[in-house]
Amino acid sequence: MAEYKITEIEGGICAAKGFRASGIHAGFRKNKQKRDLALIVADNVCSAAGVYTTNKVFAAPVGVTRAHLANGKAQAVICNSGNANTCNSDGYDKANATCQMLAKAIGVNEDDIIVASTGVIGVPLPLEPITNGIEPLVAELDSSIEASDKAACAIMTTDTKKKEFAFETIVGGKTIHLGGICKGSGMIRPNMATMLCFITTDAAISSKMLQCALSDIIKGTFNMVSVDGDTSTNDMVTVMASGAAGNAEIVTEGEDYDAFKAGLAVLCTRLAMSIASDGEGATKLLACNVRNFADLDGARTLAKSVISSSLVKTAMFGADANWGRILCALGYAGIDIDTDSIDVKFISSAGEILVCQNGRGVEFSEELAKTILLRRHVTIDVDMKCGDISATAWGCDLSYEYVRINGDYRS
Amino acid sequence: MAEYKITEIEGGICAAKGFRASGIHAGFRKNKQKRDLALIVADNVCSAAGVYTTNKVFAAPVGVTRAHLANGKAQAVICNSGNANTCNSDGYDKANATCQMLAKAIGVNEDDIIVASTGVIGVPLPLEPITNGIEPLVAELDSSIEASDKAACAIMTTDTKKKEFAFETIVGGKTIHLGGICKGSGMIRPNMATMLCFITTDAAISSKMLQCALSDIIKGTFNMVSVDGDTSTNDMVTVMASGAAGNAEIVTEGEDYDAFKAGLAVLCTRLAMSIASDGEGATKLLACNVRNFADLDGARTLAKSVISSSLVKTAMFGADANWGRILCALGYAGIDIDTDSIDVKFISSAGEILVCQNGRGVEFSEELAKTILLRRHVTIDVDMKCGDISATAWGCDLSYEYVRINGDYRS
Repeated sequence: MAEYKITEIEGGICAAKGFRASGIHAGFRKNKQKRDLALIVADNVCSAAGVYTTNKVFAAPVGVTRAHLANGKAQAVICNSGNANTCNSDGYDKANATCQMLAKAIGVNEDDIIVASTGVIGVPLPLEPITNGIEPLVAELDSSIEASDKAACAIMTTDTKKKEFAFETIVGGKTIHLGGICKGSGMIRPNMATMLCFITTDAAISSKMLQCALSDIIKGTFNMVSVDGDTSTNDMVTVMASGAAGNAEIVTEGEDYDAFKAGLAVLCTRLAMSIASDGEGATKLLACNVRNFADLDGARTLAKSVISSSLVKTAMFGADANWGRILCALGYAGIDIDTDSIDVKFISSAGEILVCQNGRGVEFSEELAKTILLRRHVTIDVDMKCGDISATAWGCDLSYEYVRINGDYRS
Repeated sequence: MAEYKITEIEGGICAAKGFRASGIHAGFRKNKQKRDLALIVADNVCSAAGVYTTNKVFAAPVGVTRAHLANGKAQAVICNSGNANTCNSDGYDKANATCQMLAKAIGVNEDDIIVASTGVIGVPLPLEPITNGIEPLVAELDSSIEASDKAACAIMTTDTKKKEFAFETIVGGKTIHLGGICKGSGMIRPNMATMLCFITTDAAISSKMLQCALSDIIKGTFNMVSVDGDTSTNDMVTVMASGAAGNAEIVTEGEDYDAFKAGLAVLCTRLAMSIASDGEGATKLLACNVRNFADLDGARTLAKSVISSSLVKTAMFGADANWGRILCALGYAGIDIDTDSIDVKFISSAGEILVCQNGRGVEFSEELAKTILLRRHVTIDVDMKCGDISATAWGCDLSYEYVRINGDYRS
């Protein structure tokens, strides 16, 4: 087994060499303290890859970005928050106009631009914030950690926390850097793609291999998160690779590809967990490990079914060790399982407790279970005892606050 | 097109000739005011049919009842609330013991008994309430409306309302009666079967035709309800047909079968709507009509996707006309749709309002929309404009109360 040394570092999307970022308040939001327009620009044209929402109703910028990335090249990302630019008759015109304005301002090709929007659906996107905002947005471009912070803040909607991580690792004898920012808190059940996430790296890698790595990693990271079961219309994850790290370009599978992919997987896992942890109204991060199952797709489906159950989520909110709901969610996942071999444990920093063995309840201390479940991070550990494949899904509890946030989101 | 005169009547499960019922407090619940053991007994052995949960984790009484109904015959139903008898090592023994005690007490065959349980999963079923309760339960058997009421109350768990309806119609020149009681409020996303529902009729119909009618009607009624997306481990719907109405026995398809099926469909629709309306924490009943679509399965899947969306449900709780979430839920339903031809209206007793035309927002009065959405019954009307098939799904809003109820269900 190969081993990789992957180290968390500071710098977010600016940790990778060859990228600058900025984020300003452009006017999509009334609150002038809230940045709402983000920009990431690479010094040169990058290899690029993307994955997108599978929702049949998708945002105009998703359509435009998919077309722009068809050639595997990109140099910049522009993203507004506060308006999704979805279900509008002039959506494509405005997404294209945004790209044109930016292309002119920074001197890149219009079709090397990744454009994204997030916010309310069905309200026409105002162009003034972009027309007026492009100049200050470009003027603020910088490669500092503060610049990455500003971009990370500018893409947030109901997110309560900025989501920004970076790692470094060794590829082909060179140190390479990977950084990412993402947003997402509600309407989260990624499927083949995810919420908005923009990743930069200075590794040298072909577009084709970058897309392979991204498409595969998504399945075990962003696609394993559910906050509320609603797959958004605006999901996208993109990666731009500048090549500035100086490693020999990765053009096939092999050691270097594996090393790069390991680093990208760690970054995506961290970003995905940050979304689950900041789910709308969440008081805790839930992980469900389904262990010792026969196949990977089945293990993933089972873990996601548990993490998506409203009854499991409310029980976790109430720190109630109601494990019958976990068995129930495993049972309706549509996977062939032996219900008489399932063990369930709850695990947190306060300890662990076995609550179900071979599909039947066992005596346990309700007091200890409560103490374990009251922590901020809780793992539901499910041992299927019929194979050696494991999968993890991430989610959060369902609280009064989720109902409050979504009962009147538009006001 | 055939026309049927189907009239609502009183009497519940005792409206059909040849049935008696009772319901007592036997001791599954601490609250002595709460009836928790129900009984329905037919004068003679009936044609019978059943549909059951598709959850791989299913209750012992579901397994026992499925075996007992394999021959299409039944004479009695016994059902406790307060304990699901699911995930217990002695579950089958206790379900069988229950049938044995009842068989002896009323003089019927053990395998002509339908046994059901509902309540918390994974706690061993105490037998004492049944041992001690059988005698008074049998002693109270009666064919009055009060007897049906008591049985309907005894099967309730978190239900806030008793669910009991009856209809009469004409089959083969004879008046036949159909009555049903059901329970269900949380863990509701029936799939090929549903929550607990027991139906009686005095129509004469073969087991085979009764099963055909039930299996088909379920698809458009109970299977079109979602409260929280969790398919229960204990779902079951059974019908017993006594033949006491004196119609010529229905043994094939034809006019009589169609007339009977029309009556059964009306009853099941009413029972299914009563479950959606009393969803845990619900402040309103939601119906989603998907009209003018190309095929029935697709229309049903689309309607169910809208009614199941947490974001649609919270918006309806907040009386917020956030139609973008409806488009979003249609888009991720996994059905091939033309997103540019969709119209959406909200309809209630306060009026109707068009909010989306051809997949794009239209100007509308937020004030009128709010007035419409504040009513107890709200219909989300979706016109797909690509066919002539329609389907309706029923659900409810998602409120703070749902979180409260499920945050600590076991205490």
